[in-house]
Amino acid sequence: MAIFEVELDIGATGTPLRAQRFHRQLREAILGGQLKPGARVPASRAAATRYGLARTTVVGVYNQLLDEGLLASRHGSGTYVAERPVPLADMAAPGAAPEARLNPFWLRPDVASAFGFFNDATVAPDIAAYPTVFDFRPGLVDLKHFPFDILRRVSAQKLRAFEQAPFNYGHPQGNPDLRAAIAMHLSVMRAIACQPDDLVVTSGAQQAFDLLARLLVKPGRSVVAVENPGYAPTRIPFAAAGARLHPVEVDAEGMIIDRLPRDAGIVCVSPSHQFPLGSSLSKERRAALIRFARENGALIVEDDYDGEFRAARGPIRALKTVDEDDVVFYVGTFSKSTLPNIRLGFILPPRWAVRALATAKICADGPCSMPTQAAVTGFIGGGHLTRHIGRMRRLYGERRTLLLDLLRSDFTAWLDPIESAYGMHVTAISNGTVDVDALSRTLARRNIHIRSLSRYYHGPATQAGLVFGFGMMDPPAIRTAMAMVREAMEEGS
Amino acid sequence: MAIFEVELDIGATGTPLRAQRFHRQLREAILGGQLKPGARVPASRAAATRYGLARTTVVGVYNQLLDEGLLASRHGSGTYVAERPVPLADMAAPGAAPEARLNPFWLRPDVASAFGFFNDATVAPDIAAYPTVFDFRPGLVDLKHFPFDILRRVSAQKLRAFEQAPFNYGHPQGNPDLRAAIAMHLSVMRAIACQPDDLVVTSGAQQAFDLLARLLVKPGRSVVAVENPGYAPTRIPFAAAGARLHPVEVDAEGMIIDRLPRDAGIVCVSPSHQFPLGSSLSKERRAALIRFARENGALIVEDDYDGEFRAARGPIRALKTVDEDDVVFYVGTFSKSTLPNIRLGFILPPRWAVRALATAKICADGPCSMPTQAAVTGFIGGGHLTRHIGRMRRLYGERRTLLLDLLRSDFTAWLDPIESAYGMHVTAISNGTVDVDALSRTLARRNIHIRSLSRYYHGPATQAGLVFGFGMMDPPAIRTAMAMVREAMEEGS
Repeated sequence: MAIFEVELDIGATGTPLRAQRFHRQLREAILGGQLKPGARVPASRAAATRYGLARTTVVGVYNQLLDEGLLASRHGSGTYVAERPVPLADMAAPGAAPEARLNPFWLRPDVASAFGFFNDATVAPDIAAYPTVFDFRPGLVDLKHFPFDILRRVSAQKLRAFEQAPFNYGHPQGNPDLRAAIAMHLSVMRAIACQPDDLVVTSGAQQAFDLLARLLVKPGRSVVAVENPGYAPTRIPFAAAGARLHPVEVDAEGMIIDRLPRDAGIVCVSPSHQFPLGSSLSKERRAALIRFARENGALIVEDDYDGEFRAARGPIRALKTVDEDDVVFYVGTFSKSTLPNIRLGFILPPRWAVRALATAKICADGPCSMPTQAAVTGFIGGGHLTRHIGRMRRLYGERRTLLLDLLRSDFTAWLDPIESAYGMHVTAISNGTVDVDALSRTLARRNIHIRSLSRYYHGPATQAGLVFGFGMMDPPAIRTAMAMVREAMEEGS
Repeated sequence: MAIFEVELDIGATGTPLRAQRFHRQLREAILGGQLKPGARVPASRAAATRYGLARTTVVGVYNQLLDEGLLASRHGSGTYVAERPVPLADMAAPGAAPEARLNPFWLRPDVASAFGFFNDATVAPDIAAYPTVFDFRPGLVDLKHFPFDILRRVSAQKLRAFEQAPFNYGHPQGNPDLRAAIAMHLSVMRAIACQPDDLVVTSGAQQAFDLLARLLVKPGRSVVAVENPGYAPTRIPFAAAGARLHPVEVDAEGMIIDRLPRDAGIVCVSPSHQFPLGSSLSKERRAALIRFARENGALIVEDDYDGEFRAARGPIRALKTVDEDDVVFYVGTFSKSTLPNIRLGFILPPRWAVRALATAKICADGPCSMPTQAAVTGFIGGGHLTRHIGRMRRLYGERRTLLLDLLRSDFTAWLDPIESAYGMHVTAISNGTVDVDALSRTLARRNIHIRSLSRYYHGPATQAGLVFGFGMMDPPAIRTAMAMVREAMEEGS
């Protein structure tokens, strides 16, 4: 009795190599077309009975054929012969450049430069004439006020505790102590209720986006809506995972939800404090986004990169706090609240996705490193994080107020600042009387580093402006630098 | 004059929104089929001149269309209209399980269980009758002999030095101090000459494999040859990146190079100490592998997971030392030589691939975390790593000799050990008189954890055996446990 569309002959029970024959004959039948694309493969139990093989053997053969691209599985409905036979690899032609053997995504100049690291077009400052550096780049934090001594001390204490643990490898979701500390922190700072088991600790927010891209994107089929302007390192991993990106415009009320394409299965937003504009997603748009996700079966990635740093009127609620449909993947980071190079962040996914996410994390790199987990666990646990955030919130608040005051008093001829009650940057829109891209280059030569808003657009910029990060700029530095900026504005207009 | 196959009308110079019109009209022409698949898109300079746009604007629009899947770029030969219009995303049907919205790869039970973490079928030990745990799992290391106090002290010293650094984020390839220390370590331990700038520091070897998979695999087109049996966490990232895996059998001389399929563009090998069999790639096969790569334009991923731990007759040379064609991506790790949960490894790629690899690393998670880099830099720099390796090489050597002696004297009725002069595990092949899978389960109930060789096969196993890791087993524990194993063997045969 044939249970496949072809009969297999793997020999009588007891014949050696029957499992390999089973594999080889199935493989040949698929490649030869005797098994038709889309044909359902019999359940492993039935095939095991029919051919006198162990069920685990049949499952092993099916998995191998899945890896070879000859079978495909559809969630909840079994395993099928793959629709398209996988084409042969295109080997590098003899004499071709060695790079031709790489995945071309990583050779794209826009991908490398989006991360701001390999930026060959950077303007060199004239250090002789302008020896003092004023760094308004966003994403940097004040290291002068960081309690390094406390971090060192609590790290050593926690390392000692970790050494007592009997395990060689940690938990892929992160150390349970650290997850408990993060759950407490989220509850206090962002009114988000969660269990430690719901969290996945990551190497910074960047790994969180990268893992979510790989978890959520179906290569070549998924459409991901991203904010425009927005933070390029959030969207690049989704492009790398094979998604189509659809930039959606942002205004003073955040992402314009009406413009979401109906086929967007994933929506990436920074609802509390949009980067770089600084606006918050309005109440109406929040409701519209949740409705969109419900009606279209979409998932939401919430980037809450500086949720702890709202100055006025208490924190705006995270979208995750109203996630009744269980579709929000919340991403947090300790890069802003501790140190950027500590590289620790986390994802709070819907509970149904925790295990698949943890699997992706093990594949990507396994648990985060012990010394780093020890440091952050100690820093949160001892109350040091809350104290540090309290102090920095006040300091950053003073700087924001100063910068907004200066922009409103001395720059009205050129710039209109966007109201912001959050974080460590302020964005100001240009009225077009000055070419801000050129101005940014002029300032860079004078050792003042301010990014033009155009750099954050995906595709052509629809607004011109400047982004003032003040993480590393104290009030005297802000006053001095802004006087120099004004001078350059006057020259340029 | 039309320079595209269709004429675009974006309005006279000075008209607002000309860049957006340029984008929208190109998009519509591609989706509408007026621009034919495969048609070459004019150079950005020509298009900029023709339409009176800034060249950066044109480049921005092209990049956006690339991300939308409507254009495709071929390395060295420009940008084309994509061959297949990207199909719409398959949205989750209303009422479908929430998991249907995830990339199904991460839901595969074989993927989760390959990492040994989510293994639902684990046998629970009978702790009342067998209170002592004997853990022969490979990949574990001896924590009792690790100088934790030294690690804590050098960590604190190095952290202090890092705090003086003016940067907020580290270098994506890893801190220069650490890379200099690794280059020195490689030169001393493995006779590999390299510059610090050639290295990319990773979160353990696992991230190295994952980054290489993403860098090297062209989704749906690349064929990757992997050792069979082999280390599943090496091959899973390649499957995740969209490669077809081709398992190649291993024998006492390592991977059987003759059986490499001609379309394998990437070959993953552990030539110094094959995992799990323990054999070394013979001289003839090394030459054959290099010849294969040269003739087929293939790249080689060399996993040197325990290269420091060869006991007899000095280390076998790494393949990387004879890489005249610049095709070997060498992967090393500190998981075996320091602590598995320190999560630090590195890649030494061919120089032509460094920048693309660093770009992939930034996308994946950015630089490795500062506390971890500080710890390992201090540990290598102070000579502590070399000292620790020297001590552990002797201890592991004693355990290997003891285990091999016991296997050769007391287990000849059932097992034939594979000669090994390396590392911290020994594999023994079963002569078939005992069902080793069943034996492994019986032993697990008695709190002795030994993995069956079958677990390391991709597809059906062609040999049966047991893998004895002795990283956590000192000589008295080995003696006690092996007596219990012998008892179970006698019951089972």
